[in-house]
Amino acid sequence: MTPQKPTLRDVASAAGVHPATVSRALNPETRALVKAPTARRVIRIAEELGYRPNPIARQLKTAKSGTIGLVIPDLTNPFFPPIVRGVEDILAPAGYSCLIVNTDNDLARERAQIDSLRFRQVEGLIIATAYLDHPLLRELQRDGVAMVLVNRRSDGVDVPSVTPDDVDGIELAVEHLAGLGHRRIAHLAGPGSTSTGAVRARAFRSAVRNRGLDDDPGLVVACARWSEDAGADALRQLLDAGPSFTAVVAGNDLIALGCYDVFAERGISCPHDISVVGINNMPFLDKLGPSLTSVAVPHQQIGQEAARMLLESIREPGRAARAVTLSVSLRARGSTSQPRRG
Amino acid sequence: MTPQKPTLRDVASAAGVHPATVSRALNPETRALVKAPTARRVIRIAEELGYRPNPIARQLKTAKSGTIGLVIPDLTNPFFPPIVRGVEDILAPAGYSCLIVNTDNDLARERAQIDSLRFRQVEGLIIATAYLDHPLLRELQRDGVAMVLVNRRSDGVDVPSVTPDDVDGIELAVEHLAGLGHRRIAHLAGPGSTSTGAVRARAFRSAVRNRGLDDDPGLVVACARWSEDAGADALRQLLDAGPSFTAVVAGNDLIALGCYDVFAERGISCPHDISVVGINNMPFLDKLGPSLTSVAVPHQQIGQEAARMLLESIREPGRAARAVTLSVSLRARGSTSQPRRG
Repeated sequence: MTPQKPTLRDVASAAGVHPATVSRALNPETRALVKAPTARRVIRIAEELGYRPNPIARQLKTAKSGTIGLVIPDLTNPFFPPIVRGVEDILAPAGYSCLIVNTDNDLARERAQIDSLRFRQVEGLIIATAYLDHPLLRELQRDGVAMVLVNRRSDGVDVPSVTPDDVDGIELAVEHLAGLGHRRIAHLAGPGSTSTGAVRARAFRSAVRNRGLDDDPGLVVACARWSEDAGADALRQLLDAGPSFTAVVAGNDLIALGCYDVFAERGISCPHDISVVGINNMPFLDKLGPSLTSVAVPHQQIGQEAARMLLESIREPGRAARAVTLSVSLRARGSTSQPRRG
Repeated sequence: MTPQKPTLRDVASAAGVHPATVSRALNPETRALVKAPTARRVIRIAEELGYRPNPIARQLKTAKSGTIGLVIPDLTNPFFPPIVRGVEDILAPAGYSCLIVNTDNDLARERAQIDSLRFRQVEGLIIATAYLDHPLLRELQRDGVAMVLVNRRSDGVDVPSVTPDDVDGIELAVEHLAGLGHRRIAHLAGPGSTSTGAVRARAFRSAVRNRGLDDDPGLVVACARWSEDAGADALRQLLDAGPSFTAVVAGNDLIALGCYDVFAERGISCPHDISVVGINNMPFLDKLGPSLTSVAVPHQQIGQEAARMLLESIREPGRAARAVTLSVSLRARGSTSQPRRG
């Protein structure tokens, strides 16, 4: 069905130059080796003939695929699309394309997906999964795979990372609630097996202690997953266990949405009975009933920064790993108010 | 930094077979040409040695890149991630990877992005942008590019498509409102330049006429974009123009969310003053204030179906184009009620 494609030789004979000149003129990296008027003529003729260089043949010569792999748990979690968008914002103008794989936070699937990306000879990996196991991370590093971690760091493996300022995010949430007069604040933490969950839970204990608020270990419950369901389960567990509290710092917005389900179920009024703060500032939180106070995390910039760092790692493989932290801010909305008196 | 990689010849000499036998045994498509015990031995030895076939060299032989291109306007629109996820669900087990590009519904950017995908020799395209211009679509078809359109059809170009049942979706919305007692229903339509916007607007006029409701052309306003802002602008325009109405069928959920902004701005109570129905049933609509009644569209299945159709087109290039329609359903929630009496 496809008409006969013009070849490099066709362009060369139409332009009256050697095929190697055509090749140099059409490759931006080698164009300077050809006289400017010749390069312009070759480019014009290649366009007129509809010539497309064969990128696979070029790849074979240069061992560069022009693609990078992006490893995320699940694109339908509203957290990830802005990160992916940020990565694309930087890669596309640099001439790179992005292969995205979902792992569903399943370790076997993660390994299989990363294998398939390496099979396609991606030039580097951006990894945004929470649970990546250390043996795989070590293996990738040993094999010299360029990579950047997003939203997590790796203890013991020296890999570049981009994370939001999780400690400051928790500080802002606790400070906001303390300012409203709350003294007994609960934390529905992310899973302890994730770097983000652990960092935020530690930051929470330290934030309440530093402000002289009640530091009751019974007020911190870890959720089984970063999800609405797991957030609802954790809040039920906390309510059933009985310690009193007037506010919740949720590990992220999905966990906070799980609290809304339990409020509806048990006739609890938010913010009057319990105030809630989320983290991530997902889209449309302003339209929830009540609108959700949340810590805004610059996801698109995190994706952009990760892509920039990966391109740097690809260009300068020897460069030392850096951990970049981006700052966060609080958006106060309807889900937080003064505690009920009494 | 990378240790010396084992070659095909290393595997062949360790297995005591000809290199061509190794090549056949390791490729699932040609494995049947090798005796089963030999194939198993070759696979075991290749694994032990850590041999990875060079996919680029293989591509050059077979002219198959193992990738497909997915063209969407903007991944951060909550509409698209489930479609992308559905595409991945089918492509990954089939051994395909997916290159995603965002066009921001900009025609020049769309052309450049599709060029870059073709340059990478994708085996086919899934196109989910609303505005793709017909000259480009015709050009792709002329060049024999396998492709499937998602959520839109093309008048005059014979390309396979997967769409939700837009006519039935509008019918369900109008029927729901008519059942509650509404007689003057407005439609904030999607842009008339998009196939979906035009189909839904036509279906709306026909649905109100068929039920003997007021068919007032002044009650249909087209939004400039499929967005919250454009929805708010259109509702303001409708309210300022003055025709009375008690309910709105929004072209999609984002347009419905724009109505929420105007309700807040003008002190209009939803659903008591005006009921609203959205389309798409985006995540978390149940938690809005009020929760949004919406037509549920099976986005993930749409993505899956599009991927299946594309794989079929790649395997059987001569197959006739089909238009597949998937059914929708209504989720009634808090944003719709009986009209206020009087």
